[in-house]
Amino acid sequence: MRTEYCGQLDLSHVGQKVTLCGWVNRRRDLGGLIFIDMRDCTGIVQVFFDPDQQAAFDKAYDLRNEFCIQIVGTVRARPDSQINTEMTTGEVEVFAHALEVINHSEPLPLDANQVNSEEARLKYRYLDLRRPDMAGRLKTRSKITSLVRHFMDSHGFLDIETPMLTKATPEGARDYLVPSRVHKGKFYALPQSPQLFKQLLMMSGFDRYYQIVKCFRDEDLRADRQPEFTQIDVETSFMTAEQVREVMEKLARELWLEVKGVDLGRFPVITFEEAMRRYGSDKPDLRNPLELVDVADLVKDVEFNVFSVPANDAKGRVATICVPGGAQLTRKLIDEYSAFVNIYGAKGLAWMKVNDRSAGLAGVQSPIAKFLDADVLAAILARTNAQSGDILFFGADNIKIVTDALGALRLKLGRDLALTKLDSWAPLWVVDFPMFEEDGEGGLVAMHHPFTAPCNMAPEALASMPTNAIANAYDMVINGYEVGGGSVRIHHGEMQQTVFSILGINEHEQREKFGFLLDALKYGTPLHAGMAFGLDRLVMLLTGTDNIRDVIAFPKTTAAACLMTDAPSFANPAALQELAINVLKKTDTSQENE
Amino acid sequence: MRTEYCGQLDLSHVGQKVTLCGWVNRRRDLGGLIFIDMRDCTGIVQVFFDPDQQAAFDKAYDLRNEFCIQIVGTVRARPDSQINTEMTTGEVEVFAHALEVINHSEPLPLDANQVNSEEARLKYRYLDLRRPDMAGRLKTRSKITSLVRHFMDSHGFLDIETPMLTKATPEGARDYLVPSRVHKGKFYALPQSPQLFKQLLMMSGFDRYYQIVKCFRDEDLRADRQPEFTQIDVETSFMTAEQVREVMEKLARELWLEVKGVDLGRFPVITFEEAMRRYGSDKPDLRNPLELVDVADLVKDVEFNVFSVPANDAKGRVATICVPGGAQLTRKLIDEYSAFVNIYGAKGLAWMKVNDRSAGLAGVQSPIAKFLDADVLAAILARTNAQSGDILFFGADNIKIVTDALGALRLKLGRDLALTKLDSWAPLWVVDFPMFEEDGEGGLVAMHHPFTAPCNMAPEALASMPTNAIANAYDMVINGYEVGGGSVRIHHGEMQQTVFSILGINEHEQREKFGFLLDALKYGTPLHAGMAFGLDRLVMLLTGTDNIRDVIAFPKTTAAACLMTDAPSFANPAALQELAINVLKKTDTSQENE
Repeated sequence: MRTEYCGQLDLSHVGQKVTLCGWVNRRRDLGGLIFIDMRDCTGIVQVFFDPDQQAAFDKAYDLRNEFCIQIVGTVRARPDSQINTEMTTGEVEVFAHALEVINHSEPLPLDANQVNSEEARLKYRYLDLRRPDMAGRLKTRSKITSLVRHFMDSHGFLDIETPMLTKATPEGARDYLVPSRVHKGKFYALPQSPQLFKQLLMMSGFDRYYQIVKCFRDEDLRADRQPEFTQIDVETSFMTAEQVREVMEKLARELWLEVKGVDLGRFPVITFEEAMRRYGSDKPDLRNPLELVDVADLVKDVEFNVFSVPANDAKGRVATICVPGGAQLTRKLIDEYSAFVNIYGAKGLAWMKVNDRSAGLAGVQSPIAKFLDADVLAAILARTNAQSGDILFFGADNIKIVTDALGALRLKLGRDLALTKLDSWAPLWVVDFPMFEEDGEGGLVAMHHPFTAPCNMAPEALASMPTNAIANAYDMVINGYEVGGGSVRIHHGEMQQTVFSILGINEHEQREKFGFLLDALKYGTPLHAGMAFGLDRLVMLLTGTDNIRDVIAFPKTTAAACLMTDAPSFANPAALQELAINVLKKTDTSQENE
Repeated sequence: MRTEYCGQLDLSHVGQKVTLCGWVNRRRDLGGLIFIDMRDCTGIVQVFFDPDQQAAFDKAYDLRNEFCIQIVGTVRARPDSQINTEMTTGEVEVFAHALEVINHSEPLPLDANQVNSEEARLKYRYLDLRRPDMAGRLKTRSKITSLVRHFMDSHGFLDIETPMLTKATPEGARDYLVPSRVHKGKFYALPQSPQLFKQLLMMSGFDRYYQIVKCFRDEDLRADRQPEFTQIDVETSFMTAEQVREVMEKLARELWLEVKGVDLGRFPVITFEEAMRRYGSDKPDLRNPLELVDVADLVKDVEFNVFSVPANDAKGRVATICVPGGAQLTRKLIDEYSAFVNIYGAKGLAWMKVNDRSAGLAGVQSPIAKFLDADVLAAILARTNAQSGDILFFGADNIKIVTDALGALRLKLGRDLALTKLDSWAPLWVVDFPMFEEDGEGGLVAMHHPFTAPCNMAPEALASMPTNAIANAYDMVINGYEVGGGSVRIHHGEMQQTVFSILGINEHEQREKFGFLLDALKYGTPLHAGMAFGLDRLVMLLTGTDNIRDVIAFPKTTAAACLMTDAPSFANPAALQELAINVLKKTDTSQENE
């Protein structure tokens, strides 16, 4: 039905007779001619109709925006004066001899040439996707998955599908459940990840597995979460954590090179402990030059309880961020930063402007200067390498509050003061996470998941000192986003049972939920390790958007609804009867729409 | 952790020091040496331990089948007398210097070297997958998906993901429902196919889409069905049915060439009408040379009501199959075929042995010969081209019964008498299906799906004579299996509403279920057409198995259960409470296990 695509016409086609299919992007009548910007999936070209070709001209007269048309015409070079350098096809135009209207269009319920309200974009998704930037992001997504598959294929990974209708596993988030009709009263769960299946594939001897796969979490959604998301899922046998990281880092480098033309270089590797200490985050944005500097040892003896009490407490922390040029901040702005850290539990934000570094106490301006003597000040200035014109912000409290507050402040200062190089890329690996963290109710939860192996630790040692255990786990972080994470897995039944016990899962529950895993571990399980990338987030980074809905063709709202199809919807009562389930309470639809 | 794979060692490695990881496939003690067949994902190699290397020898002494091990050794050429031509690595062996036991194994609960009961295979799937033929099928599956993706990429198709949590659509099968926690009382449905989403992508202008995607049907399962299955899903804009078929046929040819080394050639195209008439099936196995031959016009006037009544009825059919060499069939076998066609509603199976074609009525042996005169007999023999030694089987009843019964008999005779060339490939396209078929309750159902366009028919004509309408639909059939199907889609709202009305969907229901589709059709929908392949079935054909569970890593039973993980399972009551649903009836677990 066509010989060429609109967006691919150039001077090499001049004189050729072409057939094009596409949409009327815009129509203008000018000097007795009709001009159409005609759009297809490759771009836009100008088509014009001359009254000399009367049949086509008459039909063109009735064209409106978004009509779907087929034209036959001849490609011409535009006169120099009409060349449009902003269009890739701007040197040519098509003189139409014939026109077929494939379909009419009513006026669109949204403006095709601008970004509409999020609600309109989701309701008329098929129209929103006509915008070239939206279409471009999905094209880039397709290119990325194609690159990933090509990379994995060429590195010997097998693409193996795992089930979608599976058993509930406690991966931390809530499962989506699917009632069974055959086994009434029972439910499948949609997978939060193929974790156990990919481990079982290693036990089967498959050695290198990957899959690009939908995963599901029934969580209250944030702006960057969707109920269903896509994971690049990888597992290997007989490879160390370092070897897995090397392959995965190579994949990321190839993606950035192919999609962005950027060489990410070798990724630095830092420990979780170092990341929290220097950046106040386990996913530090290294484009931001600011760092947290610990000063507790310098302020142990000052007559300022806010500093000296946490400085002398094993669970306390006193740290500072030195902001270059920050002495120019107004009192109002400083108060705003103080209010900002309150969100993270910090009771206040001590600060010190370094007006003249060489002048000692006389050279600084600070509400806390009076508590510091010259030696302490000199030591702080020396350690932070503060220069005249800088400001120091201090956090002093328990470790978590100081780390969280200064970590968040670091990011905000980086953005506000344009210190973070937004046009650069800063990848890294964070490794050596704690195995467990406290759940706030006296128990422990797995920081990654309960199948993660500790670094060189026997089951007995792990059981006796679980909070000291370091997991053989790793996260890939780029520009402050965790794009992927993985670990070496437990490959001995005894270790697996020990971890379950530490997590408070008793033997009965272990059998019921993980009996198949514990059985499988009896039959020669290999050493295995793997990783999973969040594809949606990777695409967001590579297409420069912070809206996850921009990289998904048919996304859901933060209330997990599809505004286009009106899913979810009420079920047919007969269907529910077949499933032997009963709805106890219906959400008030009027509330829902608010 | 390794330098080579077991299955890849050959004479080129002789003298090299290698490190291997894998499993003990078999162990033998012979002449003071210990021999291990060591297995990894690539194959098996022989490793031997000599008492001179005492540490390794002592450890090897404790090895049992399926221990996971790492060895360091030197590759040696085997003496001529010990070359094993049945192993790809049979010309070499590895002399082990060092051995590490990565993991022990208990004796397996099934025999790793033979095919076990289906139940054991499913319960211990991770062990069943260790068998090289099972692993080989999944490797072939991975190769097939990789070939498909490469083909689609190189033909300009974009891989775009469509939602898994979506709205119930009436595609003929029962939906799996997923209760919503946020919108209590409402449900998502898992997709039976991405049909409407891919059509919407065409309306968005994406032009060429594909996806390899999980689909779901909550049907009572047969041996070749699974509740979740995988579809190669394709849609295009501005392409005719012929152009879509050409691309898809090229894909199939490439798959067969790459995987089987077979050139399928050009696929013949036959209409549904011809397929039913000549083969009694809409998915004929053309490896079978037998055909149905209509003879109603020849027997209209015979004094045998069984023939003459249907021969004179517009809804009747009289047809015959001529079986070369079939005159040798015993009376007992003929009776068995007669019983066989009863299954399809045929009341009997008339037959005629052609002992001597040249002898007229005297040359045939048949219970019905007495009803036929010489002219009728001669006409039947001429039309069927029956030769001496053949047998004719006759069906006479309404069209459906004759077609179904003789279609099934044709397949059975082809197999039983080894007439079907099982080692050959016979692809074809079946086209021009009826738009609608009767649902047996006075209504009509769509033969493909309600979004299929008729061949050149206006909405009014369709509404007035729906049962005459031919759909612009096509199925790809290979060796009697429908491997894929597709159609040109409806791209006008009026036609879509007409089809809905013919299917008995009233306007209110149309808005409620398909409002978004009817809205989308208002805004310049392009001509579009597509296709979907059943990946599981393609892999079955390409790996030579008729058990769908052999091509799926973790399949379900015909009762839709996973014997390995015990899915589905009872849900946490708190989870059900959050979903505001209540289980009315629990399946008795004791019954379930029967």
